[in-house]
Parts: sequence; C-alpha cells; structure tokens
Amino acid sequence: MSTDHASLANCIRALAIDAVEAARSGHPGAPMGMADAVTVLARNHLKFDATAPEWADRDRLVLSNGHASMLLYALLHLVGVGNVTLETLRNFRQIGSPAAGHPEFGHLPGVETTTGPLGQGFAAAVGMALAERMLRARFGESMVDHHTYVLLGDGCLQEGIGQEALSLAGHLGLGKLIVLYDDNGITIDGDTRVSFSEDVPARFASCGWHVAECDGHDPEALDAAITAARANTDQPSMVAMKTTIGFGAPTKAGTAAAHGAPLGSDEAAAAKQALGWEAEPFTIPDALAAAWQAIGARGAGARAAWQTRIDSAPAEQRREFQRCMAGELPAAFTQAVQAARDALLAAPQTVATRKASQMALDALADSLPELVGGSADLTGSNLTRVPAVEPLFTRESPGRYIGYGVREFAMAAAMNGMGNHGGIIPYGGTFLVFSDYARNAIRLAALMRLGTIFVMTHDSIGLGEDGPTHQPVEHLAALRAIPGLNVYRPADAMETLECWELAIRHRHAPSLLALSRQATPQLRQGENGMNLCERGAYILRRYGSGDDLTLLATGTEVALAVEAADTLNAEHGLGVRVISMPCWEHFEAQPADYRSAVLGDAPRLAVEAAGKFGWTRYVETEDDVIGMTGFGASGPGPALYEHFGITAAAIAERARTRLGL
Amino acid sequence: MSTDHASLANCIRALAIDAVEAARSGHPGAPMGMADAVTVLARNHLKFDATAPEWADRDRLVLSNGHASMLLYALLHLVGVGNVTLETLRNFRQIGSPAAGHPEFGHLPGVETTTGPLGQGFAAAVGMALAERMLRARFGESMVDHHTYVLLGDGCLQEGIGQEALSLAGHLGLGKLIVLYDDNGITIDGDTRVSFSEDVPARFASCGWHVAECDGHDPEALDAAITAARANTDQPSMVAMKTTIGFGAPTKAGTAAAHGAPLGSDEAAAAKQALGWEAEPFTIPDALAAAWQAIGARGAGARAAWQTRIDSAPAEQRREFQRCMAGELPAAFTQAVQAARDALLAAPQTVATRKASQMALDALADSLPELVGGSADLTGSNLTRVPAVEPLFTRESPGRYIGYGVREFAMAAAMNGMGNHGGIIPYGGTFLVFSDYARNAIRLAALMRLGTIFVMTHDSIGLGEDGPTHQPVEHLAALRAIPGLNVYRPADAMETLECWELAIRHRHAPSLLALSRQATPQLRQGENGMNLCERGAYILRRYGSGDDLTLLATGTEVALAVEAADTLNAEHGLGVRVISMPCWEHFEAQPADYRSAVLGDAPRLAVEAAGKFGWTRYVETEDDVIGMTGFGASGPGPALYEHFGITAAAIAERARTRLGL
Repeated sequence: MSTDHASLANCIRALAIDAVEAARSGHPGAPMGMADAVTVLARNHLKFDATAPEWADRDRLVLSNGHASMLLYALLHLVGVGNVTLETLRNFRQIGSPAAGHPEFGHLPGVETTTGPLGQGFAAAVGMALAERMLRARFGESMVDHHTYVLLGDGCLQEGIGQEALSLAGHLGLGKLIVLYDDNGITIDGDTRVSFSEDVPARFASCGWHVAECDGHDPEALDAAITAARANTDQPSMVAMKTTIGFGAPTKAGTAAAHGAPLGSDEAAAAKQALGWEAEPFTIPDALAAAWQAIGARGAGARAAWQTRIDSAPAEQRREFQRCMAGELPAAFTQAVQAARDALLAAPQTVATRKASQMALDALADSLPELVGGSADLTGSNLTRVPAVEPLFTRESPGRYIGYGVREFAMAAAMNGMGNHGGIIPYGGTFLVFSDYARNAIRLAALMRLGTIFVMTHDSIGLGEDGPTHQPVEHLAALRAIPGLNVYRPADAMETLECWELAIRHRHAPSLLALSRQATPQLRQGENGMNLCERGAYILRRYGSGDDLTLLATGTEVALAVEAADTLNAEHGLGVRVISMPCWEHFEAQPADYRSAVLGDAPRLAVEAAGKFGWTRYVETEDDVIGMTGFGASGPGPALYEHFGITAAAIAERARTRLGL
Repeated sequence: MSTDHASLANCIRALAIDAVEAARSGHPGAPMGMADAVTVLARNHLKFDATAPEWADRDRLVLSNGHASMLLYALLHLVGVGNVTLETLRNFRQIGSPAAGHPEFGHLPGVETTTGPLGQGFAAAVGMALAERMLRARFGESMVDHHTYVLLGDGCLQEGIGQEALSLAGHLGLGKLIVLYDDNGITIDGDTRVSFSEDVPARFASCGWHVAECDGHDPEALDAAITAARANTDQPSMVAMKTTIGFGAPTKAGTAAAHGAPLGSDEAAAAKQALGWEAEPFTIPDALAAAWQAIGARGAGARAAWQTRIDSAPAEQRREFQRCMAGELPAAFTQAVQAARDALLAAPQTVATRKASQMALDALADSLPELVGGSADLTGSNLTRVPAVEPLFTRESPGRYIGYGVREFAMAAAMNGMGNHGGIIPYGGTFLVFSDYARNAIRLAALMRLGTIFVMTHDSIGLGEDGPTHQPVEHLAALRAIPGLNVYRPADAMETLECWELAIRHRHAPSLLALSRQATPQLRQGENGMNLCERGAYILRRYGSGDDLTLLATGTEVALAVEAADTLNAEHGLGVRVISMPCWEHFEAQPADYRSAVLGDAPRLAVEAAGKFGWTRYVETEDDVIGMTGFGASGPGPALYEHFGITAAAIAERARTRLGL
C-alpha cells in the first residue's frame, strides 16, 4: 500500500468521517479540508515527539477553529500519542470521553488550549508565541526555541478578537508564529461571501505580517509556503490556503452541508470511494499506521538533543527553567510576602487598592522572574507597572511588560495562552467594566483551570466622572457567577497584598482582582501572621458581643461598615461584627462551622457599591443590601457615594431601621 | 473679529479647555485635535438643524471616541441646540448635568448614541447606516436620505469590534457611512507606536472601503476629503486625518499629557495665547457666536423642503413612516398575536423554544414591516429567519435580514444603532454562551433604554455535544445582573410567543430571549386570553392545596417540574404549586401582594439547568436549587441532563428529602 501524501492525509479524513458518523454530530468538513495541510505540517515541520507530547520545547499546534476537533484527535491518534486510542475516537463527543466536541485543554496531551469560541485560539497562540519569545530570551535558544502554529478559519478572522490578535502579533514581530488559514469559502450560513468579502491577505499585510497564498491541497505548495514562513523570523506569517471544505465528499464538498453535520452513511461511503479509501471504519491499514507512527517519532532526535543540552546546562539555570515550567513558586516569594506584610504593619497605608496593588507588585515581582505584566492601554490607571517588570516587550527586546493596546479580549486570551505554554505567570489590567470585553476569555481561563491574573481597577462608582459607561455595577455579580473564577475585592492595602499572594499561589484557578480608584484606610494594623483572605471572609472587627448585628462588606465599603459599626456601638451600645468578604469563592469552600461562626446569628446587612444581585446568598432579601439599584452617573466619586446613599451614615440608619431602634 | 475657519475651530478648543479645567477632569486633547475637522464638517457638510435636532432625516454624527465628549457638547452649544447652554458646559461631568463624562444617549439632543466603551460608537453608526439604507429603500429618498458620520480614534480601531464594524460595513457597501479617523499618534500609555503599528488605511481598503488621507488641520484638505467621501456612494469612506492631540497647547500638544487630564491653568492660558484666543473662560465673542448660530441653521432649508415632501406624500405612506419613527406598533400586531395564540391552542406544539420562536416570528413579522432580523452566522441554529424577513440585506438590495457574520459584538452594537436611529425594530441571534462576546453592547442597550431584541438559543447543557465551551452555565445569572435588561426564558411554545410579544412591546428596554435547542411540551393549553408572562412569574399548575411545596422553574425545566409535581401529588398526596418564572425582572416589578401570593409560604425548590447563583432571591439556600455547580460537558443533551441530575425524578427526590418524606 502506498504511503504517499494523499494516503496519509486520507487517514485523517477517514477517521474524521467515521467519528462524526458514530457520534451522529460534529464537523467533518474542516478536517477533510485541512487534512493535507496538517499532513504536510506534521511530516515536514512540526517539532513533536509523540512519546513525550508535553515536552517543554515542542512546537505548539493550536486548532483555533475548534469545531474541527476531529482533525486534531485524528492526528494525535495517528502519530501515536498514548491515550488517544481508536476507542477514544469511537467515543467522540460522548460523556466521559476526552475527545470532546471541541478540544478541551487538560483532557488530552497535544490539546494545547481549549478552543471553540472563535478567535480565542488564535489569541492564545499569540500568548504562546510571546511566552516562547520571553523564555527564549531568558533561558537561551538551547533551552527554548520553538514555533507556534495556528490553524484557523473565516470565523476566527470575522471575530474582532482575531483582529486584535493579529494586530498585536504583527506589532510585536512574533516571527515564530505561523498561521495556516483555511480559506474554504464556506461558513455556517453558506458561502462566506454572504457576510465576508475581505482581502484577508491584504489585511494581515497591513498589520505587518508575512503573507503567502497557496493551494491547500497541493503538498509541495504547502511545504514551500510553510518553509518560507519559517524562514521569516522578523514577522509572523500567514499562509492563506485555498481549500475545499469536505474535500472528497462527492455532493457535499465545497458546501455548507459539509460544515456542521455528519455526511450521512451514503455520502460517507461515496467520499471514501472518491478518496480511494477502502479500509473499514476506524481502521488504518498497517503500512499507513506505521508511516504515521514514524511521523510521530520525527521529533525524538530533537528532543533527545534538547534533553542533552538541558542536562549539561548550569544547574541553577536548569533548575530555574524546570521550576518555572512546572509552575512552582520560589522560596524567595514567601519571604517577599512576609517582608511586604511587615512593611505595611510598620507603616500603614491609606491608599487606593489599585495603588496597594502596585505596592504589592513592587514588593513581589523581584522574587518572581516569571511574572509578566501588562495593561490594555491603561497602565497609568491600573498601576500595573513596577520597576521589576519595567522593560517593555518590543519586537527588538522581549521585556516583562506587554503593552497590549486597547485590546482587552486579546490580552485576556493571550494571557491564557501564556498559561497554556507554561513558564510564565501573566497578569494584565483594564477597568473592571471592561471585563465585559474580555469576558469569554476569563471564562475559558476558569474552564481550563489556568492561573491567569486579571487586574481590574476602577471597581465601582468611585471611578467618578467618566460616568455610567465606565462604572461597573453588575460586574462583580456577573464574575462571581463564573464557576472556578476567584473574584477578589480587597478592603485595604493588607488585603490587597494577601489577595495578590493568593492569586499568585493559585496556579490552577484564575484570579480577578477588583481594585478601587479611590483611597481607603488600612484597616488591618494588628497582625496574626496569617493570610486572612485565604478563608474568603473573616471577622475584621467585633464591637461588644458582636451578636446584635452583622455587617458584611467588600472592598472600599468595608471601611464604611467599620465606621457605621463604630457609630452604632457608641450610640446604641450595639454588639456589631464587621465581616470583610474579599473572596466569596474561598469562603464557600470553608467548612460549614467556620462559615456559620463567622456569619453569626444576628440580623445581617451587606454593603457593596454594586448591584445587589447575588447577595441573598448571605442576607435575607435585597432590602438588606446597601448597594446600587441601577446604573451609575457622571460626577466626582465621593459625591456619587453620597448621591447613591452608600455612606457610613446610611448604613447606620439602615441598621437602626432593621433593628427597630 | 474674524470669523474664519481657525477662529471657529478655536471656539471648540476654548470651550473644551474651559470645561475640562472647571471639571478638573476630562479629555481636552482630542477635542482640540479634532476641532478643525468638526468645524469643516459642520460648516460645509453636516445636514442638521439646531432648532430641530431630532429631525428624522438629519445626518447622524457619532463620536465613537466618547472621551472627547466636550467636542460634541461644544459643537451642540455653538450651533445653538436649545438646552446645551453655557451652564450645561460649566457643569460638565457633575451629578445631574446632562453633559456627562461620556456622551449619554437621551441626555441631550444631538447625542446620537452612548459612547465611551471604545469601538461601539462605530458599530452603532454601522447600524444607523443600515437603518438609513433600509428605510430609504422602503420609504424612498424623498423621506430618508442622510449620511452617518463617525469620529473615532486609535482605540476604536484597536478594539476588535472596530474591525467587525468596518468589515461588515465594507461588505455591505454602506456608501453613506463616513468615518473621520483622528490619527493623532497618541494613546493613553503614550505614543501609539507602543502598541499599534498598522497601516490603517490599508486595513480599511482591504475590507472594501474608500480611503483618503489628509492633514487634519487643513480645512481645504479636510473639505476635499469629505467631499470625495460623499461622492463615493458604493463604498463606505474613511478619511485618515493626521492631527496633533491637544493642538495649540505649547508643551502638551502631541503628547499623552494632553489626553486624559486637564491642561492645568498655566498650560490652558498658554494654549489660548498660542491660538490667539483672548476671550474670558466660557465666553464666545459675539461675532463667532453668530457665525456658529448660522452654521446651526444651515440645515433649516433642507428640513423645510423635507417637511414639504413629507406633507405631500400619500397619507398612508406618511403615517406609516411617522408610526415607525415614533416606535408605535400597528393594530395588526395585536391581531397577529391573538391569531398565533389561537393557533397554539388549536394545535399544541411540542417543539424546542427556538423553534417556537421561529413560529412566533413567522406569525408576527408580516404585521411589523419595521422588524429586521439577523444572526451572527447561526441562522439555521437560531431559527431567526422566516419568510417575511427572507430577503437578505446585500449591497445591491437592502432586505430585512442581515447576515452579520461571526461578529456577535458588532451585531449587538449595530442593532443598538438601529434603535438609536429609529424606524426599525432589530433582533439578532447567536448562542446564549456567546452573549459573552456581545456583553457590553447588551449593557449599553439597557443603559440607553433601547428596545433591542437579543435572540439567544442553545440556552443550557441541552445544547449537547459541542461541550462546555458552548454550554451556558453562568449566563442567565450574569444577564439578570444587568440593570434594565429583561431576560426571558420561556417554558413552552405559548410562553415563547408571549415573551416575543413583550419583547416587541417594550420599545424602551432591551429583551433577551433564552431559548432551547431541545423540544419541550406545550404546558399551556387552557386559555384565559392574557399574556401570563407579562407578570414575570405565575402559578402554572396547582396540585391539591398547592401549599405543601412550591417548585420554581424556568424554560425547559418547567416541564420537568410539572412532571415531578405530578409524581409527588400522586405518590404522597402533596399540595404542590409549579411556578413558571419566564422573566424575573417583570416579576420583581409586580406588587408585593402578587409576588407573595404566587410564591406562597410552602418550602420552595428551584429548577434551572444553569448555575445556582442568584436563586437565593427566591429560595433559602443554593441547596434548594436543582441546577449546575460547574461547567457542562460534551455529550448528547438528554444524557447530560441525566448526568448532571436535572430530571423530574431528581426533583421529586430532592422534594422528598426537603420535606422529610
């Protein structure tokens, strides 16, 4: 049996057809259309060793058009990645199968990131290429030197995030990023011309990319284009491949019918016949299987050579590289946290929590060379830059701070990609209200269990004059609703430091820090040496018995609650406890007895300069929340707090009413 | 005193400087940089009558870089829009002032849409141009024939939505859309070259735009470029204007220091001196004031001529135009709703609520010629197309259905722009999970009180095999958290019809319909003639006394609750009421006695195939919710409902436990 290019590519096509038929759902067209490109890539270019699919210096291959998941699963099976068995493919899209409808990071080795929500794989790949560039600069080419390949379709380029990603990559000159664009002319609603009439290569070129076009079914042309892309190390490269969706299917090829539904048994059989494929379903002839296994072993030599280089590197450099890639924190980090705590206790700070965040970063970043910062063009507002990460990442020099531009979504997704890559702890800033723009990438960070850190400042009406478009109201609730995301809203400088410590320690869950524009006093000036935020909520102050009233608050409103409690105790002799709740998620994870001991049995009021939605988890009704009932307004921040009745006096008054005083 | 171009432009600059100084916050740089362009536009091109700023056929002017709000406020004041007084400008960015930090739709005439969140003004302008094109086709050029101008900066083009907007506009050939790009080379974080190195004109050109470049301070060059843009009616046009941010400020011009903070009194004085401006703050010399008033009256003749044409149009056409522009519904709509109700009662339907939505659209769209549909490339899945809106909007022919492409964010913002324009009721579809991609535009619809209708199908794990990236879990809660948004999740075909009726009737609040992929029985087969969804929640079934247990549910889970109630009543003789809650927002707006009568005093359980966050508004703890605790999974929908324990049997079992049976 021939093991020529076409036969190898047909292995992918046949498996994609079979798995989609078996699942009775899925997307056969894109795998069939891109089989040639992936075959050329795997055979001639991709640096990959199927026996060690998580080898640190492998090339990354990202399937941004994640609905074509069978392309990736078929490839991983064929090259011999251990647990991607035929049984796995037979269970495509079934509960419990790692071969999910879209590629899910962590389910199978070789799935470099979760894709499906279009454009995000591309942006994550930009993050991988950024990570590679930074790690290469830090550890040298002998340890880090690989490409990032992206497969994507029209959808990824119609989504705005696709433009953000390509613009950023072009700007930063990510020469080891190579995009293979599946230009098949078909979209779910039909011919792409229904909604898409761009000159895509010209668009990429306008953003500083090297561009090539070729026939996506001609292996020589594909090879030449990829070779040229690799040769250009100054610019990212895009190869526009003219392909036929559902290549081989006699009646459905080149039509939307091949996109998102099984071919059906007749068309599937006819397609195999047209392709000259005679094997039974889920069967790869031995010669072809062997040829693919050989492709899977192509990178073994490169990996062995890399391992030799690693082994012969200076011990300290090797250990540091391995530490970073494993996501382990250095001992110096713990010491830096303690020193920062000591400093805050020695000299308490009345500062905005965004400023406290900068102070925390300043105290910690030196101990964490893997920490990489950035902002979506709000550096001076987010206060995300400190001397340790001062050098800006430029095309000439890959510093530790990335100017993402006004591209919140790509920033978030690229940070996820850095987490997928490993070796980097990324954080990036914008205003809390613009978490909306990045929202689905925050979700994907949670779904992938990545330790991405989102720094979201200007977290309430305290933002002031910029007005309701810039004032988050519903955002804390909307973010708390995302499973697996830790939402921190620290009350003062000490809590901000503690939340930063937790965000950095959580390498398998994303963190979002909601930080204030306006100053707030340091409430924690005593010290028990523990990170109190770790339990999510705790009794910050107890007046008298603490058993007449419980005040719950987060962020800058904790200081207001303390002031109100002080008044209520002084004027009425009330026993009041003030609970600071910097992280609901951590609190919910505590044992029931801790939670009930903190909350107590007294009537409760909650204070948060945000919408009340969700607070009924802790108080009886939303009437017991001092918060917002609608959007904010334009005006000075302190005036807005007065205007919306979120003051210590208003809290005290509400408490009097609640208790019938 | 000279009333030459420079002096007129300096009126804008002086007012911007003064207002930002007075507010001690704001953005002087962009108004100073764009003053020349806006002066040329207003003087020579903009069709506008200051005495009738809401004239239906005025040109629309959208300030997409909304932080430059003083540019717009100064212009509106100078041309003499009634309530934009000097006092208004003096109160810029203060509570209660309509001159908010960013332009807020509805606060001042002449503010065509709310801007600030970058890129959305541009996309809204695309919607306005779409509305103009459709209304022009429907009512003729004698009634509708105007331009839409957009002012924008780098930020709008760095945001992904900017690309979505420009790609869509280029594709659809919106020849009356003209963008003036303020290419000032400065961004918040400094020189735009820090993060932005595109050839922007080439990018627009690659997407089918007519492109011109000019000196943004040369009135002749600006005039020529705008004239050429107007002459090209086949393509949208972009004029890239090289400008100096903070033009005139001696030390801050051309720097980021002019972007987002007051110049300071010294620099402000020096800038005025450099500009040759001698008047006191907030003072416009009489001759210049008169010249600007004359500019404001330029459109009076055009408006009078238009009014004459309207008055002489056939009465039916005139009334229909006025009805649509006023957002009033036709009597035929009410009849169509009734006929559709009758049809569902005559032949109950067991269908997916997305299918029920299509049936509702099919029944209603004929009666509403202003209804315009679309989908972000998921027409066949969202079921958003029906014969009445069959004709696709193309560059050749402006039909009633828009193929937005895979551009959820631009779709949502463009629909908002149609609402801003008036005359159109827009709806558009995508998957509920991708509400994330469009989220900030959904928010802006609520903030602007626009009647945009978001059709979001595949609203739960019932989506099935596509897996967790495509299965919404937190989205219902996250959307319910947005103030002013009506989130509908109908239980069956009848509720879907009713929710559609409500969505269409609410012309001053956005609606989002969360619809199922999977079929569900028609639960409402009796008839009292009322729209029961209008009250948000109601007793759908009462077994026995209905006083032993209350089951709350939404969407397809209502049928499960009914089944469980049936079992509990049959097996234990329990009095169970089943409450369908299609719209929490409407329910919250009901009188307290209605709400308590519906909810009753019995123990409550809630059922929703979504995260539990927020349900504590109605149940004691989240333990009383049968729902999701994390992300979904890939598998067939019915199997997933079993897997995650959201079944009638599980509900009944939870009820037994809850009641100690």
